[in-house]
Amino acid sequence: MFVKTITCPRCDIHYSNGKPLQTCSCGSPLLVQYDYTAIRKAFKKEMLNKRGNTLWRYRELLPVKNDANIVSFGEGMTPMVHLKSIGKRMETPALYLKDEGCIPTGTFKARGAAVGVSMARELGIKVLAMPTNGNAGGAWSSYCAAAGIRAVIVMPQDAPDINRRECAIAGADLFLVNGLISDAGKIVNRAIAENNWYDASTLREPYRIEGKKTMAFEIAEQFDWNVPDVIIYPTGGGVGLIGMYKGFKELMELGWIEAKMPRLVAVQSAGCAPIVKAWDEHAEECDFWESSRTIAFGINVPKALGDFLVLEALQESHGCAVAMCDHEIIAAQQLLALQEGLFVCPEGAATLAAAQWLVKRDWINPDDRVVLLNTGTGLKYPDTVRADPPVLTPNERILSP
Amino acid sequence: MFVKTITCPRCDIHYSNGKPLQTCSCGSPLLVQYDYTAIRKAFKKEMLNKRGNTLWRYRELLPVKNDANIVSFGEGMTPMVHLKSIGKRMETPALYLKDEGCIPTGTFKARGAAVGVSMARELGIKVLAMPTNGNAGGAWSSYCAAAGIRAVIVMPQDAPDINRRECAIAGADLFLVNGLISDAGKIVNRAIAENNWYDASTLREPYRIEGKKTMAFEIAEQFDWNVPDVIIYPTGGGVGLIGMYKGFKELMELGWIEAKMPRLVAVQSAGCAPIVKAWDEHAEECDFWESSRTIAFGINVPKALGDFLVLEALQESHGCAVAMCDHEIIAAQQLLALQEGLFVCPEGAATLAAAQWLVKRDWINPDDRVVLLNTGTGLKYPDTVRADPPVLTPNERILSP
Repeated sequence: MFVKTITCPRCDIHYSNGKPLQTCSCGSPLLVQYDYTAIRKAFKKEMLNKRGNTLWRYRELLPVKNDANIVSFGEGMTPMVHLKSIGKRMETPALYLKDEGCIPTGTFKARGAAVGVSMARELGIKVLAMPTNGNAGGAWSSYCAAAGIRAVIVMPQDAPDINRRECAIAGADLFLVNGLISDAGKIVNRAIAENNWYDASTLREPYRIEGKKTMAFEIAEQFDWNVPDVIIYPTGGGVGLIGMYKGFKELMELGWIEAKMPRLVAVQSAGCAPIVKAWDEHAEECDFWESSRTIAFGINVPKALGDFLVLEALQESHGCAVAMCDHEIIAAQQLLALQEGLFVCPEGAATLAAAQWLVKRDWINPDDRVVLLNTGTGLKYPDTVRADPPVLTPNERILSP
Repeated sequence: MFVKTITCPRCDIHYSNGKPLQTCSCGSPLLVQYDYTAIRKAFKKEMLNKRGNTLWRYRELLPVKNDANIVSFGEGMTPMVHLKSIGKRMETPALYLKDEGCIPTGTFKARGAAVGVSMARELGIKVLAMPTNGNAGGAWSSYCAAAGIRAVIVMPQDAPDINRRECAIAGADLFLVNGLISDAGKIVNRAIAENNWYDASTLREPYRIEGKKTMAFEIAEQFDWNVPDVIIYPTGGGVGLIGMYKGFKELMELGWIEAKMPRLVAVQSAGCAPIVKAWDEHAEECDFWESSRTIAFGINVPKALGDFLVLEALQESHGCAVAMCDHEIIAAQQLLALQEGLFVCPEGAATLAAAQWLVKRDWINPDDRVVLLNTGTGLKYPDTVRADPPVLTPNERILSP
């Protein structure tokens, strides 16, 4: 509809829209650019009042040309929950959690899959392949099933058990690898070269990020177009963070929000923190993180293709990058359940641990409005919770403590 | 706000609002009645355009007096997904699925818990207890955690594993029983009598159903106030069905919909079908179903307190009750994933099996608009899916079939 060009952010080459694209010839991810002047005329935020509560409410800012190609399960407009109790304890009363657990497939990966698979359908793709830490595989398998596209998914053997079942029931061609996502990536690369499949790996096609950027649109809309001061995001491949940065810039371009970017915080696990290391060393790219290991499996990404874009977004937004230990992540997960009733994934819990850390160091101020981005439901991570309740026989009594 | 009285549908006794109520002295569940004349004046459906996409958008039709007592995680306004591919195959093109998997805690039980726990808070309850087949326990534990109410939960040992973890992480007092939900119910009854706890069992307090009825409001609103012809609902305790029946009647009372009730269908598993048996025998109540057993654990309820209300709603709406075998339920679950990309719970899958059965028997017509109510996400039922993918080493190749 309003796509103008597909652009390389590194060497500024422009590609024309309408045929399958992967990365730039320089290896960088490609980004979609729109005709913002035309959008400004055609799309007013008041129009949103009458639109459905899915990410497709921002239709003019999404790349699909023909509505008939849209594959949607009603994804988007996830809850923004005020963490009253924890916020009070932390003396940061304007503490919120955006809950991406309430979305088809149970994680924010549904956003990238909805837009990515819709575009793959529009481009006539028959087979796509991708490495995944699990949740993206589940989401892309599901959307591909609805689109009639064959999905070839490779994930680490250690990925959450539920992810392989999601792929299986949706009919994907699923392979496990006795290694990390980087190993899965190598297997996929080779298979793509040999079979001429479409590469749906993180940032190797330009549309997944277009789905992810809608988180920024929703956050802005949910706060009545006054963006929060800080957004904390669990960072593996970093697409959500790059996407939100792009999304906020687009809203500024349209004049829907003031020229104020939220300070973006990338949180990683201490067991896999390449972005944090590069941030601390003022590097422009990351080194490969050897022997990575963390309970927050979704962010176990030892080297991300878009690392330079993540670092740039942190820099430009006056944000930062912090690493949390697994025991801090688990403690934050328990606190969210006990105090607020929210069962989040470990990746999402890491954002609360980071917030606590940043409040203690006065990087977050008491009057800052802070959004924690919970990327998925805790229901996909049963092993993070211990439960050994007593077993009664039908005629036994409960002895009240 | 607009509550007029709490009424027994069996003996028509009226109870006054504002203090903790359980069942009527005759043993029947109690129902909340509103001052519909006052609501008609104060509440116009156009007002919904500017309200948040949660069940609290229907605030005037909910029992909580003081907003400060509301415990909400953003529950409600779940997706209505058009099943284009399966609908076409079945020659019932207007086939839809309301996806209650996209709600906090991953099942429709969140609705009853949100309203039930908010009311418990308003009434000053400190401890509540309930038997559960799992999902209600998870939901009520979560909302109780946020409300600062102690939850005592008793569930069958065979309930899905994830349910006990949900209760545990939210800090509930959890007990398992080596038996069925009816056995859990007996243990809870005794504990309530001995400890004077609030009884939050299905239909033993009048507010859970008020949360569930919002499914009817949403269905009507999602179809622009033209109700569908048929709604198929997986029936255990039956609160959702009784709730929707009540909800549609309230919308008629307000003049928001025409005086046309959707035909309500109760689907049960052939391994536990007391409602279906009573329906077939034209009975007004059910017998206890001995040795019940089904993969759709949430509807393994051998005798429901509100059975007579379910049967009445089926009768009055010109609906019916049907039982499906577990293998038909599993086949329907797989079909939904493969064709539509939706991973639903077995209870939700039973609704598709029932639709197929009813279409074959011409009970559903090709031009009927049909809504399947999927009560929860398949993510909570990993054991319903087999996945044995090949395991590769990092240097292995994918051999394309």
